[in-house]
Amino acid sequence: MPETDEKLAAMRHSLAHIMAAAVQRLKPEAKFGVGPAVENGFYYDIDLGETKLSEEDFGKIEAEMRKIISEDQPFERLEKPVDEAIAWARESGQPYKEELLNDLKRSGTTVAKDLNAEEMGTIAGGDAAVDSVSFYKNGDFTDLCRGAHVESTGKVGAFKLLRVSGAYWRGNEKNPQMQRLYGAGFFSEDELKRHLEMLEEAKKRDHRRLGQELDLFVFSDMVGAGLPLFTPRGTILRDQLLGFSEELQRAAGFQKVAIPHITKQVLYEKSGHWDKFGDELFLVKSQETSDQFVLKPMNCPHHAQIYAARPRSYRELPIRYMESTIQYRDEKKGELNGLSRVRAISIDDAHVFCALEQIEAEFTSIMNMIKDMYGVLGMKFSARLSFRDDSDGYLGDPTSWEKAQKTIEDVAKKLDIDYFVEEGEAAFYGPKIDIMVTDALGREWQCATEQLDFVQPERFGLTYVDAEGTEKQPVMIHKALLGSFERFLAVYIEHTAGRFPTWLAPEQIRVITVNQEDPTVECANKLVEQARQLGLRIEIDNSNESVGKKIRAAEVAKVPYSVVIGEKEITSGEVMPRVRSDIKVQGNGQPVGIEQFLKTVANEAKSRVHKTSLHG
Amino acid sequence: MPETDEKLAAMRHSLAHIMAAAVQRLKPEAKFGVGPAVENGFYYDIDLGETKLSEEDFGKIEAEMRKIISEDQPFERLEKPVDEAIAWARESGQPYKEELLNDLKRSGTTVAKDLNAEEMGTIAGGDAAVDSVSFYKNGDFTDLCRGAHVESTGKVGAFKLLRVSGAYWRGNEKNPQMQRLYGAGFFSEDELKRHLEMLEEAKKRDHRRLGQELDLFVFSDMVGAGLPLFTPRGTILRDQLLGFSEELQRAAGFQKVAIPHITKQVLYEKSGHWDKFGDELFLVKSQETSDQFVLKPMNCPHHAQIYAARPRSYRELPIRYMESTIQYRDEKKGELNGLSRVRAISIDDAHVFCALEQIEAEFTSIMNMIKDMYGVLGMKFSARLSFRDDSDGYLGDPTSWEKAQKTIEDVAKKLDIDYFVEEGEAAFYGPKIDIMVTDALGREWQCATEQLDFVQPERFGLTYVDAEGTEKQPVMIHKALLGSFERFLAVYIEHTAGRFPTWLAPEQIRVITVNQEDPTVECANKLVEQARQLGLRIEIDNSNESVGKKIRAAEVAKVPYSVVIGEKEITSGEVMPRVRSDIKVQGNGQPVGIEQFLKTVANEAKSRVHKTSLHG
Repeated sequence: MPETDEKLAAMRHSLAHIMAAAVQRLKPEAKFGVGPAVENGFYYDIDLGETKLSEEDFGKIEAEMRKIISEDQPFERLEKPVDEAIAWARESGQPYKEELLNDLKRSGTTVAKDLNAEEMGTIAGGDAAVDSVSFYKNGDFTDLCRGAHVESTGKVGAFKLLRVSGAYWRGNEKNPQMQRLYGAGFFSEDELKRHLEMLEEAKKRDHRRLGQELDLFVFSDMVGAGLPLFTPRGTILRDQLLGFSEELQRAAGFQKVAIPHITKQVLYEKSGHWDKFGDELFLVKSQETSDQFVLKPMNCPHHAQIYAARPRSYRELPIRYMESTIQYRDEKKGELNGLSRVRAISIDDAHVFCALEQIEAEFTSIMNMIKDMYGVLGMKFSARLSFRDDSDGYLGDPTSWEKAQKTIEDVAKKLDIDYFVEEGEAAFYGPKIDIMVTDALGREWQCATEQLDFVQPERFGLTYVDAEGTEKQPVMIHKALLGSFERFLAVYIEHTAGRFPTWLAPEQIRVITVNQEDPTVECANKLVEQARQLGLRIEIDNSNESVGKKIRAAEVAKVPYSVVIGEKEITSGEVMPRVRSDIKVQGNGQPVGIEQFLKTVANEAKSRVHKTSLHG
Repeated sequence: MPETDEKLAAMRHSLAHIMAAAVQRLKPEAKFGVGPAVENGFYYDIDLGETKLSEEDFGKIEAEMRKIISEDQPFERLEKPVDEAIAWARESGQPYKEELLNDLKRSGTTVAKDLNAEEMGTIAGGDAAVDSVSFYKNGDFTDLCRGAHVESTGKVGAFKLLRVSGAYWRGNEKNPQMQRLYGAGFFSEDELKRHLEMLEEAKKRDHRRLGQELDLFVFSDMVGAGLPLFTPRGTILRDQLLGFSEELQRAAGFQKVAIPHITKQVLYEKSGHWDKFGDELFLVKSQETSDQFVLKPMNCPHHAQIYAARPRSYRELPIRYMESTIQYRDEKKGELNGLSRVRAISIDDAHVFCALEQIEAEFTSIMNMIKDMYGVLGMKFSARLSFRDDSDGYLGDPTSWEKAQKTIEDVAKKLDIDYFVEEGEAAFYGPKIDIMVTDALGREWQCATEQLDFVQPERFGLTYVDAEGTEKQPVMIHKALLGSFERFLAVYIEHTAGRFPTWLAPEQIRVITVNQEDPTVECANKLVEQARQLGLRIEIDNSNESVGKKIRAAEVAKVPYSVVIGEKEITSGEVMPRVRSDIKVQGNGQPVGIEQFLKTVANEAKSRVHKTSLHG
């Protein structure tokens, strides 16, 4: 961790303690779970019995926090034997801390697999059972904690409480529900202010709200949580985005295949995914046979079966199978969130089967597709190169790993990609590149990925015959350009605030009639017909509302272009298009012939640009 | 049943008895199951213990059958009290007959739900427990049987034993496996001969064999039975066929939606499908939550949820949702057969939500799509109009039914469709049209369907507000043009013997090089590049084989066009295309400029015709 990041984390973690101390002052009965520093701030999980915190309580808690800060209490570290610590927890009425301490005593932090990395950081270190644990104390407040902290409560920068939400103790539905109190924390008031403004903007752009307003997707209680149903408009976005991905892949020699969504369990036992996915797998029961089936959580083993269906020659390689298909993962209900986290995940997935010496060309080709895709989408990205470290647990020949990692880094350099290497972050089966995309609010999202796989070809016994007639093992490359389409769409709706570029817009042009009679309606219908011939998505608003109201409705629907049809347009054959403000158009505000206008928009959509000239 | 059909069935059923009698003479230990008349012939399920019948035994059995026929034994009907019949079965060592008789005694034929209609017909009638049962006797052979039979064994026309296969007693894997002995039976030797020739041709065209030879789809033991994996070539057929269906629907105002493959069980409890599908449903278990999920066996309830997600106005109707998506049905393993019967079924499904007065226009529009589709596919069809009868069990208002049935028949008349009405064949939820397509071998297949549904809108409480502001209930129309894509592909592979028309052919042109050096290879590559620019699917055979062998390989792969590139072609810029024999081409056998050739093929593909002119 760079030094500033470390300082920021210590400050945020100290704010978590200060918040807990403040809550304890106000509600002495509070029982505490864990309270880590997180991105942009901190939280603490608190059990207050029947008492529910709400935003109305934030002022009081913040005031108490400010008192503690002005008292400038030093953070003191103390070490206690684990049994003494357990006795302390029992006496102080902190059952959650007691449970954690018992776990630590028994088997160290490894037992607490259900806590995430941030949460782990708050309690203690070590993989083995521990003898003693560390505490931090400020004023009256003592907490089981590994640190680090700032020197004293006076040194914590700017903060603000943001929200409170339910969280099961250790993330498990069967455990008691606690209240997770979130705050933002930054070095300066300025940074905090910018962050709060960003949050305000993000709220306006919330994809769940825009998804409903723009009629893109719906959820149904009867279908189930995390299972979106895409409306006609949402399906256009889906088809256009996945279609663009497919187009890029097809140009690079990828071929479409089609697989079912289920498989017998044995396929995953063979591939090794059975153990890896565990509880995340949806199990499928046949009532007719005793076969145990599973909903596919990924597509590679199915694709490997197509490869394996007949002998392969080096002449056929690389073989590249692509398919945009839904995979299913049984995410925890509490973690489901609009389209950001779903159980039915559409991936623009593909798998390359190739010789080791072909990976440079393949990685280059895939990286070029990623550049093309995010170039068109207008989003910056950086690449995280996840390589192995010296630890055990990586499968496959170390020389191949080394060669592959060098190749991957060479490709990133050659293509002038903004990248960084993280050692020890590789998958056990091979090194990978994850693409981190930055949205308009400055948030980073992991989207595209390219992963090398030495293991699956081995496990499935995949082979090809080389030029000398020798049987060889291919390597596999897993790749996705958008990654999860659902998550990408969530990101992209918020990135664009729903103002989709013309090629993606579910409705590209809206025709507004000034009255509901011929020749107006006739002219409008003719325009619609012409536009559809050009492949444009056009709708007509022939309702009995005022023109002003209809124009406003087109703006709310964020339609790129709208044209009003009245007497002048009928006579002149020219329209005065209203252009959505984010679209750069030359010659805007001047009348243009209907055919010329439609052709221009059709070309804009076809070329997927976000700027155009209405006058040729 | 028309009189000839009745006579044919009696004759075939008599042949089943004669075959069983012959087997009993040869193998007195034989235990018999059921032996019905079926399409084109008859079968009998026989348990011979460890003895396995094979085609080598057919001659002997046929000779014995001929003896029985020449003995011209009369078929005598006798009635026995059921207890006496049970005693007879026990004494004759016929445990399967004994089991059936016990069932009949207990609760009539309704208990034997696991037997199909033909099988039922062989044993007895009635829905309630029976007191007496009928037998038929010819010579030494007596069989529990409802009839009818021909007068005597001499009156059975022409027959031939065809094959023997395994069949579980009552279709249940847990029961003993018997041997199902099949024969063909016709009035005349001529008809039998024609049928055997058809079978011979069907064998050559078997889609399972051609599917492998043409590399269209594969199965994997690890994925599971009935779950095809489509290779790149098969996926082209899939995309082209489903894409054509989508194109026709889009032109008729259908909009694509996208739904997940699972749902909570409660959706089907509400829709009524939970009871209807029973064992055919794949149950999906979440390990994270207690929700019970199901793999969707149809799409309508999901689509109804999209409709129901917001209030609807009459102005929006008809709302037409289409989606080509896989649905899952847990078919019995023994009934799975190549692509003809699978567990993962891709349907070009759609649902129209409309007012009752709109169904004429919608049925007309859908019927026109069906005409267009099968016109292009070059297959004749007739329509079965399945209407209600006077019995109970049909839901919805009788006046609406009557009106709807009249409308449907009017549409069929108006569009000059070859149709017939079957009363009593409607679904409980509404009348329907099933399209019976005839293949090149004269076999009939049910493919497209249009079904009216008065019930689901009611169950889901779907509404719209009409012009007067009143809340009304829409009707639903279910439709599919191809039906199950997998089954259609099986039919179409056999219909065309794998000689797909150019628009569908996975590989449309093959380029054959006379040597592996420039300028030949350069010229071939340039041609390939030009062809791909035109959207053509073209492959190059640059292998080190003789030109003759390469031409032969292109023929085996049933590629519509192949061109040889050698010195003459390079110099002249003209090629002499080899055209697959079923494609009607004007100007075949004359050289043609490369560009002209490629444009012609591209136009042929684009227009989906099956004939073309190479010389403009």
